[in-house]
Amino acid sequence: MDASHPAVYPVGVPPTAVDPPPRVRMKDYEGMPSTLGGLVLRSGQFACAVTALSIMISIPDFSSVTAFCYLVAAMALQLLWSVSLAVVDGYALLLRRTLHNPVLLSLLVIGDWVTSTLSLAAACSSAGITVLIDSDLAQCAHNHCGRYEAAVAMAFLTWFLVSLSFFFSFWLLATR
Amino acid sequence: MDASHPAVYPVGVPPTAVDPPPRVRMKDYEGMPSTLGGLVLRSGQFACAVTALSIMISIPDFSSVTAFCYLVAAMALQLLWSVSLAVVDGYALLLRRTLHNPVLLSLLVIGDWVTSTLSLAAACSSAGITVLIDSDLAQCAHNHCGRYEAAVAMAFLTWFLVSLSFFFSFWLLATR
Repeated sequence: MDASHPAVYPVGVPPTAVDPPPRVRMKDYEGMPSTLGGLVLRSGQFACAVTALSIMISIPDFSSVTAFCYLVAAMALQLLWSVSLAVVDGYALLLRRTLHNPVLLSLLVIGDWVTSTLSLAAACSSAGITVLIDSDLAQCAHNHCGRYEAAVAMAFLTWFLVSLSFFFSFWLLATR
Repeated sequence: MDASHPAVYPVGVPPTAVDPPPRVRMKDYEGMPSTLGGLVLRSGQFACAVTALSIMISIPDFSSVTAFCYLVAAMALQLLWSVSLAVVDGYALLLRRTLHNPVLLSLLVIGDWVTSTLSLAAACSSAGITVLIDSDLAQCAHNHCGRYEAAVAMAFLTWFLVSLSFFFSFWLLATR
């Protein structure tokens, strides 16, 4: 045997020396996609959007103001988006799967950002008109200020819940 | 020698097996805090906010509408925030330091989110009033629709630039 080539013995290396240090992941936090909290968030968004939409279309002459028509359109888009993702979350929970692939997460982040921005824009433009009618012009006697305010409040709540979903998805995408 | 306890030989483990895989970091991307792109973004936000504010306060009776007063307040807050961070970015660039500690990044993320939300809310509420005056009531002959629209456009641009800063800071915080 050649002394310059020492014998190599196959020995087991302790696994602790090979594994990289564990990274802090938030993928199991409630509220993220494919968790029960995520499903509750989506259901809340859907419920708030449906309520805002119902209140606004129950006002006979809402369509005479562009901002109120925009609120109806934004809430309709929001409820379609939220109910679709509630179904996806429910499906993932039933099958005990996590839908955390980068393409789906990017889609969630973009979709949540767009719909939350549109919801906030609709809520704010309608709030501007409501404050103008109520405080600046004092025309509530001839208008449905109470119903306008309720619809705007539900639209703001919708935006807040969608923003939470956006934060969770964006954090998950950035830390994956 | 006991055959049930095999001899252990101290062998060198190849370093490639120990190192964790390299992580993709974005901390040097232009637009992030303490980069030249970040400074340009902050300067752009400041310029747009000052323009929106100047146009709005040049209209004699803007204070009769609550939404327009809110736009002025939001733009004033935005320009103070943006100019402060432009100074911080300039200081970091001069000293060639990166201000990427978690506390500062968290402050940036929260501040950018709050100010961008307030700017968008102000832009949308003013846009709602402008569309009401212009399209729904056709009262532009007695109002300064052109100046309202210009102020709203600059406020939307301010919001867009602050959103970019928010995305960069949030990504950096999540991947630090």
